[in-house]
Amino acid sequence: MTKPRFAVVLSGCGVYDGAEIHEAVLTLLAIDRVGGTYQCFAPDVAQMHVVNHLTGDAAPESRNVLVESARIARGQIKPLSSFDASSVDALVFPGGFGAAKNLCSFAVDGPECTVNPEAERAIKAMRGAGKPIGALCIAPAILARVLGQVDLTIGTDAGTAAALEQMGARHISKLHGEIVVDQGLKVVSTPCYMLDSSIGQIADGAEAVVRKLVELI
Amino acid sequence: MTKPRFAVVLSGCGVYDGAEIHEAVLTLLAIDRVGGTYQCFAPDVAQMHVVNHLTGDAAPESRNVLVESARIARGQIKPLSSFDASSVDALVFPGGFGAAKNLCSFAVDGPECTVNPEAERAIKAMRGAGKPIGALCIAPAILARVLGQVDLTIGTDAGTAAALEQMGARHISKLHGEIVVDQGLKVVSTPCYMLDSSIGQIADGAEAVVRKLVELI
Repeated sequence: MTKPRFAVVLSGCGVYDGAEIHEAVLTLLAIDRVGGTYQCFAPDVAQMHVVNHLTGDAAPESRNVLVESARIARGQIKPLSSFDASSVDALVFPGGFGAAKNLCSFAVDGPECTVNPEAERAIKAMRGAGKPIGALCIAPAILARVLGQVDLTIGTDAGTAAALEQMGARHISKLHGEIVVDQGLKVVSTPCYMLDSSIGQIADGAEAVVRKLVELI
Repeated sequence: MTKPRFAVVLSGCGVYDGAEIHEAVLTLLAIDRVGGTYQCFAPDVAQMHVVNHLTGDAAPESRNVLVESARIARGQIKPLSSFDASSVDALVFPGGFGAAKNLCSFAVDGPECTVNPEAERAIKAMRGAGKPIGALCIAPAILARVLGQVDLTIGTDAGTAAALEQMGARHISKLHGEIVVDQGLKVVSTPCYMLDSSIGQIADGAEAVVRKLVELI
């Protein structure tokens, strides 16, 4: 079998305004451990805002999602506009508030959220090609908005689960390292830091998603 | 045995101007996997500079090492000034240019470098207490400057190895996942991204360092 090729969509660099760093790195590690290759992508847009991660306060500056995501990718990243579903076998969205602030507006608009057009295009292209998609933490909100009727988990938070269901998804509560698989749509999700977690539990969740995606390829 | 308590010193957030993110995250994962606990620290100082990780160019802005390191630590970080060797069992320095730009000036000054006073105090306090210290990637340069005669590795780069030896260290070439142990000084080092590496090889190196540190506690 050839090496499975993963695309990983980042949303900045840092849990409060970008991609959750542990989830992103441990997704890349899980892909490497299963013998896959990865290419990171991010939209070339301004972050919704910048959060000082020491204080939790908004910071009076502007940062670009692609430029900050490049920190996690060690510079090896492409604009999401260049994503081509025909060149990958699976697509993964790590979480962090960036997924709900920069890839869609769920953090602000809840079930009325809009999705970054490039992210929406990537998801629909994968779906159209019958290729699997993974989502960690809050990132399943993007898939609920784009795909509507899809089985998902964001852990156990009732309010967030209700918002996903308002968008047409079916939410199933899951704990550390557990996944929900929508076999029909080939969508795999896991709670990660939507639960109070150790970093080892994040690694378990990322690995479970990546292993299932490989099965679904 | 009680859980081993690790201090992890970060130097920003991103390989070119801060802590190398994969090395930092995979050090935290390795600590969790051996059943340890960790507390992250960073100096509350301005970064030497900010690098756009997409282009590799210097960016006309200023960022704080502690504030940016907080992204990797998910906000759970303390100023390095508050480090107390009596409350930890082992100290680890992940790499990235931040170790050689923000924790010491090795990237600019080579063997004539100076070390951040708080980092130097932490290293000397650990040494004075007979407690082990680990260093990944380029971070051994800090230990060479502070400890002088110490067995170390930064991989296989001859120029960097010569600079470490000018500071009094003995450099031993090592490959992916391998470590050098200075049994007398209880110092453990590994090359990580000083070699062209996969993320899985970084995880191997971080795990090898952390496991050896536990043995040395």
